Amino acid sequence: MQELLSRFDGRDPVALGRLLKEVENGTPLGQEALRHTAPRHGCAHVVGITGPPGAGKSTLTGRLCKQWAEAGLEVGIVCVDPTSPFSGGALLGDRIRMLELSSYPNVFIKSLATRGSLGGTAASTADIIQLMDAYGKDVVVVETVGVGQVEFDVMDLSDTVVLVNVPGLGDSIQTLKAGIMEIADIFVINQADRPGADDSVRDLQRMLADRQGAGWLWPVVKTVATRGEGIHRLAEAIENHRAYLKREQLWDEKRRRRNRQRLMREMDRLFRQHVLTRIQMNETDRGLLEAVERGSQDPFSAARYLFQEIVNQGGQP
Amino acid sequence: MQELLSRFDGRDPVALGRLLKEVENGTPLGQEALRHTAPRHGCAHVVGITGPPGAGKSTLTGRLCKQWAEAGLEVGIVCVDPTSPFSGGALLGDRIRMLELSSYPNVFIKSLATRGSLGGTAASTADIIQLMDAYGKDVVVVETVGVGQVEFDVMDLSDTVVLVNVPGLGDSIQTLKAGIMEIADIFVINQADRPGADDSVRDLQRMLADRQGAGWLWPVVKTVATRGEGIHRLAEAIENHRAYLKREQLWDEKRRRRNRQRLMREMDRLFRQHVLTRIQMNETDRGLLEAVERGSQDPFSAARYLFQEIVNQGGQP
Repeated sequence: MQELLSRFDGRDPVALGRLLKEVENGTPLGQEALRHTAPRHGCAHVVGITGPPGAGKSTLTGRLCKQWAEAGLEVGIVCVDPTSPFSGGALLGDRIRMLELSSYPNVFIKSLATRGSLGGTAASTADIIQLMDAYGKDVVVVETVGVGQVEFDVMDLSDTVVLVNVPGLGDSIQTLKAGIMEIADIFVINQADRPGADDSVRDLQRMLADRQGAGWLWPVVKTVATRGEGIHRLAEAIENHRAYLKREQLWDEKRRRRNRQRLMREMDRLFRQHVLTRIQMNETDRGLLEAVERGSQDPFSAARYLFQEIVNQGGQP
Repeated sequence: MQELLSRFDGRDPVALGRLLKEVENGTPLGQEALRHTAPRHGCAHVVGITGPPGAGKSTLTGRLCKQWAEAGLEVGIVCVDPTSPFSGGALLGDRIRMLELSSYPNVFIKSLATRGSLGGTAASTADIIQLMDAYGKDVVVVETVGVGQVEFDVMDLSDTVVLVNVPGLGDSIQTLKAGIMEIADIFVINQADRPGADDSVRDLQRMLADRQGAGWLWPVVKTVATRGEGIHRLAEAIENHRAYLKREQLWDEKRRRRNRQRLMREMDRLFRQHVLTRIQMNETDRGLLEAVERGSQDPFSAARYLFQEIVNQGGQP
C-alpha cells in the first residue's frame, strides 16, 4: 500500500488509476488514499459540464480538454453516467469518441457509472476529484447528463458550472432545466450552425438580464463543437470565471464549504450505520421500528426516543 | 389546539387548511398534528403526476380529480411548485385553472412552494400527504414539475406514479427524463390530437417491452386533457395499479417503507442538529471543523473522532 501511495506521489498514472478504483469501491486502501491526499488537494479548477443528452457535451468536453492538454495543462476528466436501460446505448458512442483523448499523457479519464443508486454518486465523485486534484491535475472536468439529483449534487462539487444547450430546444427544456440553470455560471449554445441559434442566445440573454446578479455576468457562448468553433471563447470564459472566484475570495470559500460538507456527510453515514446496527442488535428498538412501520407508533416520538437512547446516555459534552 | 384537532377529526376543511399550514411551517402545533394523525393514515391512494412543463399536467390533474370528485370520492391535491425566476410565470396560469376545482366540497388543494431550498420539500410533502390521508381523503394527488431531486423525492412518496409526456418531444427529453421513467407506473401521451402521437406511443411501448418487468405491464394512455378525452381510461389504469399493489402486498410494503424512511429522516435531522449545536459550544470540535475546512485535517478521520465523541461515550447498547 505504501508503495502504491509513493508511486501516486511520484505521479505514476497507473497508481492513480488503481487508487481511483479503490476509492470508487470504497475499500480500506481507498480510504487510506483519501486520508493521505486530503492535505494536498484544493488547487485544481473543477469545471462541471452538464446539459441534456444530444447537446454535444462529450464532443465539447473533448475539444476543450484537447486544447488544455496541448497547452501543457494536466487534465482530469470524470464522466458521470447514469446507467439506464433507456439511455445506456446513446451515451456509449460519446464515450468512445472521448477516449481518443487518452493518447495525451497529461489527460486522465475516469468513468463513473451510477448503477441506478443515486445516493452514493456525489460522494464518489467528490473522492475522485480529490484524488485527481492531489495528483496534480490543473483542471478536473466533471461531465454529467442531466438526470435529477445526481446532476445537482455533482455540479455542486464544481467551481464553474457550464450548461450546454442546443438551438430550438425551446421553452420546455429551459423550464425543465430551470433548477440547473440557476446554478450555471456559463451558458453554451452548441451546434450553433443550426437554425435558431441566435434566437436561443437572445432568449437566454433576456432571461439572464432579469436575474439578480452580483459581480458575475453570465456569458452565453456559441460553439460548434464538432468543428472546434468557439472553444477558445469558452476556455476564456472558464478562465475568467476562475479569476473572478479567486478575486472575490469565492474560491477558498467553495473549498471550505465542500470540506465541511464531506465531514458532515461522513458523520451522517456513520450515524446511519450505527442506528441500523443498533436496531438489529436491540430487541426493544426493533419492536419500536416495527410499530412505526405498521403505523401504530408515530415516527417523530419514536425518533426522539431512539435518538436520546443513542446520544444522550451520559455523553453530553 | 385541542379544539383544532377535534374540528380536524370532525372533518372541518378550515381546520385541515389551518393544520396544513402549521405542518408546512414546522410549528409545534404542526408537530402535534402529525403525532395525532400518525396512527390513522395509510388508507389514501397517493398518486404522483409528473412530466415536463407544457405537457398539460395541471389540466390533466384537474380533469381526473373532477371525475373522482363527481363520483363522490374525497380528493386531496398537493401542487409542488419549484419557485424559479425562470418558471414562475408559466406555472401560475395552470394553477389558476386548477382552482376551479375548489368549488367541489370534497376537493382540497394545497400548494407547496419549494422556495429554492430543495431539501425540505419531500419532508413537507410527506407531512401534507399524511394529514390529508388522516383527514379521510380517498385519493391524494401530488403534482410536480420535473426539477431534479424534488421530483424524485416527491414521486417516491406516491403509490402510483404517472408520467405525462406530449408527442414529438423526442428522444432528447425521454433520455433526459430517464431516471423518472424508471419509477413511473403509468405513461400518458397527452395532447394526443397533435401529430406524432401514435409514434410516441409506439416508441414508448417499444422501450417498455425491453424492460424487465415483474407482474405489472406499464400501460401507455393517450389523452387530450383539454377536451377530457382519455381521462376515463387513465382513471381505470390508476385503479388497476391500486388493485395490483394490494394484490401483491406492495401496498402495505410501500407504507412500511415510507414510515421507516420518516423515522430515519427524523433521526438524521436530530443528529445533524445535535452535531451543529455541539460544534458551536465546544471549542475543540470547532477547531477540528476549521482544520477540516482549511484542508489541513482529513474529513474522514475527523468524522470518526467526532462521531465517537458524540455517540460512544458510555452509551453503547
